Amino acid sequence: MTQLSTPPPLKTVRWFNTDGPLFPPVLAGRVVAVYAFQMLCPGCVANALPQAQRLREAFAESDLAVIGLHTVFEHHEANTPAALEAFLHEYRIRFPVGVDAPDPDGGPIPQTMAAYALQGTPSLLLFDRQGRLVHQLFGHPPDLTLGAAVQALLQSEKAGSPGARAEAGDGCADGVCVAPVG
Amino acid sequence: MTQLSTPPPLKTVRWFNTDGPLFPPVLAGRVVAVYAFQMLCPGCVANALPQAQRLREAFAESDLAVIGLHTVFEHHEANTPAALEAFLHEYRIRFPVGVDAPDPDGGPIPQTMAAYALQGTPSLLLFDRQGRLVHQLFGHPPDLTLGAAVQALLQSEKAGSPGARAEAGDGCADGVCVAPVG
Amino acid sequence: MTQLSTPPPLKTVRWFNTDGPLFPPVLAGRVVAVYAFQMLCPGCVANALPQAQRLREAFAESDLAVIGLHTVFEHHEANTPAALEAFLHEYRIRFPVGVDAPDPDGGPIPQTMAAYALQGTPSLLLFDRQGRLVHQLFGHPPDLTLGAAVQALLQSEKAGSPGARAEAGDGCADGVCVAPVG
Amino acid sequence: MTQLSTPPPLKTVRWFNTDGPLFPPVLAGRVVAVYAFQMLCPGCVANALPQAQRLREAFAESDLAVIGLHTVFEHHEANTPAALEAFLHEYRIRFPVGVDAPDPDGGPIPQTMAAYALQGTPSLLLFDRQGRLVHQLFGHPPDLTLGAAVQALLQSEKAGSPGARAEAGDGCADGVCVAPVG
Repeated sequence: MTQLSTPPPLKTVRWFNTDGPLFPPVLAGRVVAVYAFQMLCPGCVANALPQAQRLREAFAESDLAVIGLHTVFEHHEANTPAALEAFLHEYRIRFPVGVDAPDPDGGPIPQTMAAYALQGTPSLLLFDRQGRLVHQLFGHPPDLTLGAAVQALLQSEKAGSPGARAEAGDGCADGVCVAPVG
Repeated sequence: MTQLSTPPPLKTVRWFNTDGPLFPPVLAGRVVAVYAFQMLCPGCVANALPQAQRLREAFAESDLAVIGLHTVFEHHEANTPAALEAFLHEYRIRFPVGVDAPDPDGGPIPQTMAAYALQGTPSLLLFDRQGRLVHQLFGHPPDLTLGAAVQALLQSEKAGSPGARAEAGDGCADGVCVAPVG
Repeated sequence: MTQLSTPPPLKTVRWFNTDGPLFPPVLAGRVVAVYAFQMLCPGCVANALPQAQRLREAFAESDLAVIGLHTVFEHHEANTPAALEAFLHEYRIRFPVGVDAPDPDGGPIPQTMAAYALQGTPSLLLFDRQGRLVHQLFGHPPDLTLGAAVQALLQSEKAGSPGARAEAGDGCADGVCVAPVG
Repeated sequence: MTQLSTPPPLKTVRWFNTDGPLFPPVLAGRVVAVYAFQMLCPGCVANALPQAQRLREAFAESDLAVIGLHTVFEHHEANTPAALEAFLHEYRIRFPVGVDAPDPDGGPIPQTMAAYALQGTPSLLLFDRQGRLVHQLFGHPPDLTLGAAVQALLQSEKAGSPGARAEAGDGCADGVCVAPVG
C-alpha cells in the first residue's frame, strides 16, 4: 500500500516562460509533471526534455501542467540563469521552467532536489490533482507507460475515486515507480 | 456525439501464435488493440509493429489484448501464410496474428479490411471491454496518445461509467480518431 | 600482406532492376559493392539496404556499381522471386538485384553464398576495378569507413598504383575486413 | 577550377583537450577537419559533434586531425570557457577544442568565424596535408560523403598528385562544397 503523503513544495529562485511564480505541486487541480534536468546533462537533452515537449502536446493544458525544474548539482559556474535562458531559447522549450533554490549552506545539491531525494538528472515527478506525489522516477519512462500514467491520474480524479487513484499509483510498472516521500 | 455501434467481427482464415482461433473484438472483457498490417509494408515494419510490441509490454495481458491482422490487399502472391510465418519468426512477433479472409468474389480487398473500410496499412483498431469500436486510425498514433487512450478504456470500464468512456472516445486527438462504423 | 585472388563469379538465376544479366564482380572497370541480403532479414531491411541506397546516391554510377544479391538460405518457401519483386517495389530499391542460384544438390545454401563462404546476411563484398575482392564483411560497416574504402579503391585505381590499393585493402579497420578467398 | 588559396589561421584564445596550443590548419602534414560549433546549438549537439566523434574513431590520428572550434556568435554570456569545459566533460568530447578569438572591436562574430565567412554553426572546414582549405560546409555532410572526402585527401597527397587533389575538391557533391577563400 502506497502512502501518498504531502510532498514538499518546489523551492525556486526564478522562473522562465511564465508571468509569475508557480507553486507546484498544487496547480489549480491539474495533474502536474515536473522534469528535473540540467542543461548540460546529455540524457536530459536527448531524451527527457523532448519527451516533456511531446507530453505538452499530447494533453490539454487545462488537464496537465508540464514543468521543468533546473536542479543544478554540478558545474554550477556553467549552469547560470543566463545560460539556462539561452538554452531554453535555442531548444525551443516553451513550458515553464523553475530554477531550484541553491543550498543555503553552500552545498552542491539544491533544495528541491534534496527534499525529494532525487538521485540525479533527468528525474520525473508526477503529482495528482490534489498535489500528491504519485510517481517518482530517475531516468525517463517509455512514452506508452507515461501516457497511461497521466491518463490514469486524469480519469480517476474525475470520478473522485481514491481506490482507482491508489491502484494507479501502487508499486512500479515499466520503470515508473511510486516513491512515498516523508 | 459518437455512436458506438457493434463492429463487425474479424473474419480470418488462420491464426499464428495462438492455440485456437480468437474471436475479436470481444475477448473476455479485455480492451483489444488490432494492428492491421502487411508484411511487405515498410511503415508497418518500421513503425506500427514495433509499437504493437511495445504496447504488448506496457500493459498486462489480462487487461489488454494486442492482435495483428494480416490484411493483404496487394502482392497477394508474395504474402502467403508461409511467408507470414517466416516473417513473424524473423521479427520475433509473439502476439496472436490472424490472416484476414480473402474476398469470396476474388477482389483484392480482404473481408475484414472491407468491413471496417480501412484505408490501408498500417491501421489501428481499438475496442473497449464490451467489444465496441472506440478508435480507428490509418497510420500509427504517438505512443503517449496511445498509452492514454488504452488507459482511458481500461479505467472507465472499471467504473462502468458510459460517460467517461464516451468522453475518451469522442472526436480526434493527436491522430487517434473515433470512427463510427455502420 | 593480402593476396587478392580472382574471386568466383556471382551465380544468379534472375535479375531485377536491370535489362540484362550482370556479370559481377567485373563490371566495366567500376568498383563494385555487392550487398548479400534476404528480404525477411531484419538487419538487412533496417540497416544494410538503406546503406546500399545511400551508397548509390553518394557515388557516381560510372565509378561505383551497387548491387543486391538475394542469398536465400532459410525460409525458401517465403523468399520466392515473386515475393522479392514485391519487396523491391515496396522498399523502392532501384539498383540491380540478382537472385543467388540454388544449390543443385538441394542444400539450403545458394551457390554464390557458398563460394564466398558468407556467414549470413547482411554481408558486403567490395571489389576493385579489376574485379578483385578487396573487402568482405558480415554485417554492415559504419558509413564513414565505407565511404573511405570506396574512395580508396576509386582513387588508387586511377593512379594504377598496386601499392596504394594493397594498402587500402590490407587488414581490418572499423569492421571492414579483407577476406582473401581461395 | 578551384583555387586553393592559403587560408587564414585559426585565431584562438584557449584550447581544451590538448597540452599546447595548436596551429591549424597546418598540422604536421595531416589532413585536418575543423568543426565550428556552439555548445548551445541543437544541430551541433545532435548531429555535428557526434559525427566529429565518429570521424575521430574512423581514421588514424597520424593521418587526420579532428578539431573543434567554439565559434560563439550569440549568447556570449552563456558560452563562457567554464561552461564549455563542463560541456566537453559531460559529452565526452576528447579531441582538441579551441575557443575562437573574440572580435577586438566588440562585435558578436569571433575572428576565425569572420575570416572564413562562416554562415553559422555547425560548419565544417576540411584542409589538406599542406594546410589548404579544400571543403567548407554549413551544416554537416552525410557520413559516406565525408569518409570519401577525407580518404581522397589522404590518398592524393601520398601520390603528391595535384590533379587528383584538385579533382576531389572541385565543386560540390552531396552537400560538401569547395569554398575558395580570399
